[in-house]
Amino acid sequence: MNEQKFVQFLKENFKFSKGKGIGDDCSVYKLNDYYQLITNDILIENIHFNKNHFSMNELAIKSLGVNISDIIAMGGEPEYFYLGLGFPKKFKEKDLKDFYNGLKQGCNKWGIELAGGDFSGSDKIFISITMVGRTERPIYRENAKNGDLIGITRGTGESALGLKCLKNKIDSKYFINKHKKVIPEIKRGRILSKYVNSMIDVSDGLLLDLKRILNSSKKGAKIFYEKIPVSKKLRSFCLKYNFNEYELVLSGGEDYILLFTISPKKELNLKKENIPYYIIGQVNNNQDELIVKHNNKTIKLKDYGYDHFLHL
Amino acid sequence: MNEQKFVQFLKENFKFSKGKGIGDDCSVYKLNDYYQLITNDILIENIHFNKNHFSMNELAIKSLGVNISDIIAMGGEPEYFYLGLGFPKKFKEKDLKDFYNGLKQGCNKWGIELAGGDFSGSDKIFISITMVGRTERPIYRENAKNGDLIGITRGTGESALGLKCLKNKIDSKYFINKHKKVIPEIKRGRILSKYVNSMIDVSDGLLLDLKRILNSSKKGAKIFYEKIPVSKKLRSFCLKYNFNEYELVLSGGEDYILLFTISPKKELNLKKENIPYYIIGQVNNNQDELIVKHNNKTIKLKDYGYDHFLHL
Repeated sequence: MNEQKFVQFLKENFKFSKGKGIGDDCSVYKLNDYYQLITNDILIENIHFNKNHFSMNELAIKSLGVNISDIIAMGGEPEYFYLGLGFPKKFKEKDLKDFYNGLKQGCNKWGIELAGGDFSGSDKIFISITMVGRTERPIYRENAKNGDLIGITRGTGESALGLKCLKNKIDSKYFINKHKKVIPEIKRGRILSKYVNSMIDVSDGLLLDLKRILNSSKKGAKIFYEKIPVSKKLRSFCLKYNFNEYELVLSGGEDYILLFTISPKKELNLKKENIPYYIIGQVNNNQDELIVKHNNKTIKLKDYGYDHFLHL
Repeated sequence: MNEQKFVQFLKENFKFSKGKGIGDDCSVYKLNDYYQLITNDILIENIHFNKNHFSMNELAIKSLGVNISDIIAMGGEPEYFYLGLGFPKKFKEKDLKDFYNGLKQGCNKWGIELAGGDFSGSDKIFISITMVGRTERPIYRENAKNGDLIGITRGTGESALGLKCLKNKIDSKYFINKHKKVIPEIKRGRILSKYVNSMIDVSDGLLLDLKRILNSSKKGAKIFYEKIPVSKKLRSFCLKYNFNEYELVLSGGEDYILLFTISPKKELNLKKENIPYYIIGQVNNNQDELIVKHNNKTIKLKDYGYDHFLHL
């Protein structure tokens, strides 16, 4: 079973009659004068992170960041959250306080609050964050239109390169920081939400997350690799250490940039907002087809990124 | 650090300005015409359960039950939930489907819906449920008054005895079912919420959860053991297998009964509702004092139940 089939199984078996449920970054529930957004993301030791790579403080801040990113991807702003924490018994009180101090820093930085949660001893670190946010106009994955331009807010691959540096003990503070620190684009997301048709945050790789938009919208797309901003620094690291640039940029996870589709007409208005973004391709009606061109040559894609379900 | 100190640390460092945050079974957030309740409970393999004791189906239903119980303890009714699931890679697709089928049964049984969540492979089973509910009158722990009667909806200790049976391979379907199956008292909780001053669900032991009410309310209490309904079946099992009855009844966890305090005047009205409950003691102003009498003799209490923080 892959993720797509699993989500299909869930959608068929679990209806959320009060709003929009499974299948997007957040659930959407209409209240009197706005929409309440709720998302839940889990981070598990040795699956999502290696505790040797993160201080407790950094881990807490990153956990918040990835959840905030889901709220932003729906056009929302984050408000408050719940933390379910499994924390190894061998750890000390200081470790726990470092973790909560990280949470506090994240709260101050992003204007959010801790509203509740649960705590337990455990073998491995397990973090579950449920984030609540709000928006006046929720942006869904399923709304990409034929002819929409495909945009991204920053380049991809730098977080995945940072993880490679950590794993291979390559000393690069620049890329390691890109992996450790999530920069949720709260203001940029709010501006985009006024114009875009669909949006997602890139957590599992540019192509995999684009595939999610396309599958939900029953569309296809063509991407032009040369339009993706790839920094000289990333390119030279790939050459030096023999890393596959395509793999990093197209399938590297955890950049938490925003990926959106927008009508060409609305894009003219978005231009006037003066926020940085890059148009990298276009949506078409060829359902299930995703083509990546690089200087007119088609790139062969082995897979589209990380799928938690492929083992099942 | 114990739980009380940890909650104090959290309360000092994390303010929830929009409503009531840390320190009760749920957070409480006022919407236009009702209060939204949200709770998060985690269940970790080998900490909260042993997977040899539960089928995937039973585990899913129990996970829902313990979260629903928190909503009820605040005087609310459950509506929908989010599931963060870490599921071992060695498991099969069938195991996962059994788990989700259990969720579906729970949804049908208790009138709730799955609204979203997250999934990942992991070493051990990790379940995080965030449950959303509503009430017109939230009931807090901190509101017990001097002179309040202390009530419970059922006897305690049977779930803990069931766990002992499982661990010691004693064949008793009756008690094992008491451990495996949570019976959230949705209707009874809604009726109680019209009369009581404070309420909690007994998850970690009668005395520990009573202590939580008393600490929050800055009160003390006296309990009369002989008023607690202890079944003949439980008593005879304790004699036969040399289990400590006091320990099971006073400190055994996971009965998920409701424990409440109510003014003597309001209790006269509650009587007319014809729901079963037992008055087992009374609240007083002797802060931090909890005395348990059994036929006029004071029971010496070693500790009050399970505290996840005592290792820190």
